Amino acid sequence: MKTMKPSIPKGTRDFGPEEVNKRNYIFDTVKSVFVRYGFHPIETPAMENLTTLTGKYGEEGDQLLFKVLNNGDYLRKADKDALAALDSSQLTASISKRGLRYDLTVPFARFVVQHQNDLTFPFKRYQIQPVWRADRPQKGRYQEFYQCDVDVIGSDSLLYEAELVQIYDEVFKALGLKVKIRLNHRKILEGLADICGISDKLTDLTITIDKLDKFKNGWQGACEELSKRGITEDKHAQIKQVLDVTSLDQLKDLYASSEVGQAGLAEMEKVHAFLEGYDLHNTLAFDVTLARGLSYYTGCIFEVVVDTDVEGQEKVKMGSIGGGGRYADLTGIFGLNDMSGVGVSFGAERIYDVMEELSLFPEETRSAIPKILFLAFDEASHMFAFKQVTALRQAGISADIYPEPTKFKKQMKYANARGFSHIGIIGEDERTAGKITLKNMQTSEQTLLSPEDLLKQLQD
Amino acid sequence: MKTMKPSIPKGTRDFGPEEVNKRNYIFDTVKSVFVRYGFHPIETPAMENLTTLTGKYGEEGDQLLFKVLNNGDYLRKADKDALAALDSSQLTASISKRGLRYDLTVPFARFVVQHQNDLTFPFKRYQIQPVWRADRPQKGRYQEFYQCDVDVIGSDSLLYEAELVQIYDEVFKALGLKVKIRLNHRKILEGLADICGISDKLTDLTITIDKLDKFKNGWQGACEELSKRGITEDKHAQIKQVLDVTSLDQLKDLYASSEVGQAGLAEMEKVHAFLEGYDLHNTLAFDVTLARGLSYYTGCIFEVVVDTDVEGQEKVKMGSIGGGGRYADLTGIFGLNDMSGVGVSFGAERIYDVMEELSLFPEETRSAIPKILFLAFDEASHMFAFKQVTALRQAGISADIYPEPTKFKKQMKYANARGFSHIGIIGEDERTAGKITLKNMQTSEQTLLSPEDLLKQLQD
Repeated sequence: MKTMKPSIPKGTRDFGPEEVNKRNYIFDTVKSVFVRYGFHPIETPAMENLTTLTGKYGEEGDQLLFKVLNNGDYLRKADKDALAALDSSQLTASISKRGLRYDLTVPFARFVVQHQNDLTFPFKRYQIQPVWRADRPQKGRYQEFYQCDVDVIGSDSLLYEAELVQIYDEVFKALGLKVKIRLNHRKILEGLADICGISDKLTDLTITIDKLDKFKNGWQGACEELSKRGITEDKHAQIKQVLDVTSLDQLKDLYASSEVGQAGLAEMEKVHAFLEGYDLHNTLAFDVTLARGLSYYTGCIFEVVVDTDVEGQEKVKMGSIGGGGRYADLTGIFGLNDMSGVGVSFGAERIYDVMEELSLFPEETRSAIPKILFLAFDEASHMFAFKQVTALRQAGISADIYPEPTKFKKQMKYANARGFSHIGIIGEDERTAGKITLKNMQTSEQTLLSPEDLLKQLQD
Repeated sequence: MKTMKPSIPKGTRDFGPEEVNKRNYIFDTVKSVFVRYGFHPIETPAMENLTTLTGKYGEEGDQLLFKVLNNGDYLRKADKDALAALDSSQLTASISKRGLRYDLTVPFARFVVQHQNDLTFPFKRYQIQPVWRADRPQKGRYQEFYQCDVDVIGSDSLLYEAELVQIYDEVFKALGLKVKIRLNHRKILEGLADICGISDKLTDLTITIDKLDKFKNGWQGACEELSKRGITEDKHAQIKQVLDVTSLDQLKDLYASSEVGQAGLAEMEKVHAFLEGYDLHNTLAFDVTLARGLSYYTGCIFEVVVDTDVEGQEKVKMGSIGGGGRYADLTGIFGLNDMSGVGVSFGAERIYDVMEELSLFPEETRSAIPKILFLAFDEASHMFAFKQVTALRQAGISADIYPEPTKFKKQMKYANARGFSHIGIIGEDERTAGKITLKNMQTSEQTLLSPEDLLKQLQD
């Protein structure tokens, strides 16, 4: 058989031991917080029916779906007109009925509707699984990556917004990363349009606000964009006045005339009331300029960024590492109406990159290797060493042994390559005495120990 | 938008909270043993290049590969002759260059070759990820299922065979399931062909042996099969004599004339020497009739089945729940030769089913719900209750709260549906006193407690 040079598809990755351990450290941290807050895990299949996925992510999203070819003689049922016309997009539906999960939100909505009779609402779920997108691969953007979502569905209680703030706060505290949790409310954006008398231009207003920090010439650029979108100059000062606000209180007077604005303020205050007395580790900031996911969210919106005002984190350049919000009708598309929900996600891939940059991974994830490696120099000693390593493992200690009683140099090379901190050396002398020479690789100190004393020392 | 009835592809599954927790219980148990034995985790992408996958699983396997349609205008580069002839199998290579992982073995081989310069050999890895096969869905057979593999590559030391026996033993001990670990050696099968003078018929011999327990009329059926395969009747008695052997010692004389048979015996004895003094929890049985994976394995072969001789497990009907063996040249196909390896896998899906049947999952995986649910009956009490639940969560206790201060009956219905064992009730009296009424749902006992005493009680 022909030998081939092995590779993996563009935009996908292999993860070696250290990367898997570090990624699991993030996932385990997140999960432990989710569980403390009463959230339950679910998992959905990698492949969904294309009828479930198509049309949910806009036209661009549909093009980024990975479609799975039907098995067997798929051309038999192919659309013959599309074939004749060489029309790829027309043909697809007839030769592919499954696609790879594009996010966790649509599968979650599908799950809730499909299993609604088995679920207790409000249903609190988390889901940590890979998703696939046929994006052009580039630095930091992959075709396969993990999403990490936590949602509660079937209640409009603002208590859950408070819980999600706390979850963000606790997770990043546990990870050792200081963040800013930015909070806004869709109705506060609606209130702004309302008081300016441009409610019909809400989408144009929010799109512009969403890009505020991207205009090269600052507010001037935003004004040009607003004008271009039909929001006339006489409104710009009033918009600016609201966007400059930094606390809810300042908005009260400005929004006195807007019912929807007042409603947004009241909801935000209720969230803060739930959080009163909660000792936030990170910064929670009301941010009237936060306008993400405009078509999707109907209530509170969240975004998390690395806090670059904190010592040691000044140089981190990274977009949002989390976000979410409340949605009024996620499951309507699958036929289940009036299910309000709220959820946030963790950008695990970006969190990983930031933690790597700031060296925040604990030592044990960096070098998750056994506590000791045994070396032996003759057959009988090797057998004796294997009994020692077995005894340690049965006592719950992670331990390993070089597979052959070969030259010391070769075995030490292996020990160094894997980075063991302790070596258990067994030659004829040790074997005869029933003991082990323990070598500390950092200090080079050597001690002759009985098996019992070795166990004790490694347990400490 | 049209409302659609949601469903998932045939042969795939959603996993609800209890199933995820139980599955993770198996995976976590397995992982903790792997880590103690010095194995490291790796992960590979769901999609591999089809050039990596095709031709590795036989013709049938190729047909069971899920192929992913190329993105964009895939017909532009399609094989026009295949299109004209409506030849599906001819067309595939030109419209699909990626496929879903079919097992973890080929991706592992690909990984080792691709990253050989970054790995330290012998390389001990485990991998727990889903695989996809376009098998016809049926009871217990899915198109998406997890595999759980542990391998060491780059050494022919028989110490690793011993480690894998210990790993099987420890994992099933930890899971509470008694198993039989069956062990044989490829060279013992070769020895049998050798002493019978039918080395050219080795494959026919092993195929027949592999089916021994499937013949309706027992040994008579096997003889018919042997004859049909050109192994003449005069050999049958000699074959039977070896197949009836139950210990290695009995084979010594029978194999006196066979070099390869002697070599197999010597290797098996070495494995047993490593295991001497190891206190096996399960049954380890030499089984000369074990002949799995004939084309693939070159040394020891393993298989694990539920031990139906053990009390309480008599009724379990289940094929093998684990298996593996030594292979001389897994990576040769990708251009890296002379890399001996040995590995076994755990049939996680079957283990799950058996554990479910025998009720072996611990209580906490059955009902992984928070320790307490708070109920409140007015706005102020609800706010007070939220502070209590927050305090418990911050102390590391998993706790939850009903999202609204609504009718007692409605809240209790929710508490019962989720199955909480403790309820924290807060009405005006409790709030005024700064206390919580703790109700044990099993005993219906109620106690009025301070927040500190509640914490203490829940920590116990």
